[in-house]
Amino acid sequence: MSNAKLIYAAPEKNADLFYATHFWAPDAILFLEYKNKKYLVLSDLELERGKKVAKVDKVLSLATYAEKTVKQGGAGIVGVIDTLLKEFKIKKLHVPHETSFILVDGLREKGYHVAPGENPFYMERTLKTPSEKKWMFEAQKVTFKAIALAEKILGESAIRKGFLHWKGKILTSERVRFELDRFLLELGYRTPDIIIAGGLQATDPHCIGSGPLKPNESIIVDVFPRSDKTAFHGDATRTFCKGKASPELKKMYAVVKAAQEMAIQKIKAGINGTTIHEGIQKYFAAQNFQTGTIDGFKQGFIHGTGHGIGLEIHEEPVRIGSRECILKAGHMVTVEPGLYYRKQGGVRIEDIVFVTKSGCEILPSYPKRLEIP
Amino acid sequence: MSNAKLIYAAPEKNADLFYATHFWAPDAILFLEYKNKKYLVLSDLELERGKKVAKVDKVLSLATYAEKTVKQGGAGIVGVIDTLLKEFKIKKLHVPHETSFILVDGLREKGYHVAPGENPFYMERTLKTPSEKKWMFEAQKVTFKAIALAEKILGESAIRKGFLHWKGKILTSERVRFELDRFLLELGYRTPDIIIAGGLQATDPHCIGSGPLKPNESIIVDVFPRSDKTAFHGDATRTFCKGKASPELKKMYAVVKAAQEMAIQKIKAGINGTTIHEGIQKYFAAQNFQTGTIDGFKQGFIHGTGHGIGLEIHEEPVRIGSRECILKAGHMVTVEPGLYYRKQGGVRIEDIVFVTKSGCEILPSYPKRLEIP
Repeated sequence: MSNAKLIYAAPEKNADLFYATHFWAPDAILFLEYKNKKYLVLSDLELERGKKVAKVDKVLSLATYAEKTVKQGGAGIVGVIDTLLKEFKIKKLHVPHETSFILVDGLREKGYHVAPGENPFYMERTLKTPSEKKWMFEAQKVTFKAIALAEKILGESAIRKGFLHWKGKILTSERVRFELDRFLLELGYRTPDIIIAGGLQATDPHCIGSGPLKPNESIIVDVFPRSDKTAFHGDATRTFCKGKASPELKKMYAVVKAAQEMAIQKIKAGINGTTIHEGIQKYFAAQNFQTGTIDGFKQGFIHGTGHGIGLEIHEEPVRIGSRECILKAGHMVTVEPGLYYRKQGGVRIEDIVFVTKSGCEILPSYPKRLEIP
Repeated sequence: MSNAKLIYAAPEKNADLFYATHFWAPDAILFLEYKNKKYLVLSDLELERGKKVAKVDKVLSLATYAEKTVKQGGAGIVGVIDTLLKEFKIKKLHVPHETSFILVDGLREKGYHVAPGENPFYMERTLKTPSEKKWMFEAQKVTFKAIALAEKILGESAIRKGFLHWKGKILTSERVRFELDRFLLELGYRTPDIIIAGGLQATDPHCIGSGPLKPNESIIVDVFPRSDKTAFHGDATRTFCKGKASPELKKMYAVVKAAQEMAIQKIKAGINGTTIHEGIQKYFAAQNFQTGTIDGFKQGFIHGTGHGIGLEIHEEPVRIGSRECILKAGHMVTVEPGLYYRKQGGVRIEDIVFVTKSGCEILPSYPKRLEIP
């Protein structure tokens, strides 16, 4: 049986290709793994850089293969792949699930047997090596430094006429986001969309937040930066309330915190993510926090408990949710239950844990407090 | 004939889906356009935000469709799409070229006729509207502000013991990149990899540059930020030399500058990109700047002249290169010839132009000077 693996994608958009080659490029490039050797086919633009930095056995010239292809009456990327596979005498190959159907249709027309590989293509990247674990630990430490900065800004803010004021101006979600963005940049990290969402905005889990921040209501701070150096992510959330939280909000916070800690207690290799997720759902219901359509809006615990994370912010197939997933030692997974009610506000608490045989390690531990005086 | 268009992708990675919906999400979502109406199918997590911000006619609940699918004995995303298409009585559909073959195989097995749409799926996004033109003009103004900052830093630097010094330290590519990154962030723009590449690094067009910068050699500054607000890109390159450029480098610079300006003179609706690209190739050869393998390395003019740009940094199918492409009024395209020789260094000069019936508009004009005293 053939063990050829082929990827045609842009490493910037394809974590498997980056994982396999450690080569970063904005446009689609061609990658082949065959008989335990890795090959990259690069345009003249990428050729010399590829030879220098790509972690592959051989870098081949796309221009050379394109020339050969044209001589043989072929054309396009399907023609180039055909030329390459003929040289290696490959007839069967695996490609990633996300491979374009145009490419696969083209190769099948030429008689190749194209089958999907695992999803993700390099499934082993879900099991973090000691180096990868260290890089993620570093990323998460930086993530909490950013959250600490948000906490500090809220702490330094004054409450005046129903709004938070900081450094002489009304404090907005945008301002906090900017301060965190800048801080992360200085440490060599970038985040696409830091969530700083208060009040009603906090009840919409993917709303990044905008406008003035107010006292006495929940403010969700969710930060998920990627390291420029290692390309690995951190991801953490804390919920704050500047001033006084209502008894209802305090109760929500205590219940979400307890749910998160119970889930972390249960996580270990061999457990099914659904068991943990359903445990939280039941606990919330038992505490009288219902999930469903209320006043025409989806409210309550309206998302999964956690997702795999690594080179990608949401990494398949690791999940703690309604889809079955047996956790393995070496998985990295977020644990982030939340409750969202349009009247009381939103609360989410998120950490990353590293799954082990006997339990899990929090990556690293960071305090959880709601009220900021 | 059916005019159904279906996309299943993450808007963050799929510019067509973002273009069609103005909805930003990190995970794959389902989109249908049928009889001039647009539909998004969203999970509970995205549902309320989608109803509020997505520019579509209707937001449907994924949970509802998943339930219906399970009741009918179906499963997975193919099952959900099947349920949806049955409701609309759709049997034929167009999907983007980049659609996964697993999805297409699944739909074909269920009897659907799945054909590729245009590439890009919303081809009309290559023709910029007045608003889009304005947003790109703004982005490019910001891009040049960042380049001006790099120029200023080089101007303020001192030459000591063969290195540039700035603010008491040896000036590195990383430091300049950081200053530009921070500056862009303050203006609401982000760039993945600002290129600050000097000396031998400048001869490798996609090398982002690292380590100390030296005087009397070329330094390529290539900045391509995306606006947080509009999601459109700028992209510009200038080549500088702190101190004194060699006569060879000066000649290279003059020839690249002349080539770029000649190309810009020629660009107008109706012209083929290959004509412009080959014109530059011929001009370089006539000026005695050869392209090919020299001392085992690809050197000379080793990339295309330009690429389409907009929501994506490299936007298909607009090109000025070896592939045929008739330019149209409304296209945005970079014009960026370059010469790369390991002995003399690298030179690239890049602007974006807006193609019109009678010519093109530079977006906006910015000075070109090599030597910085």
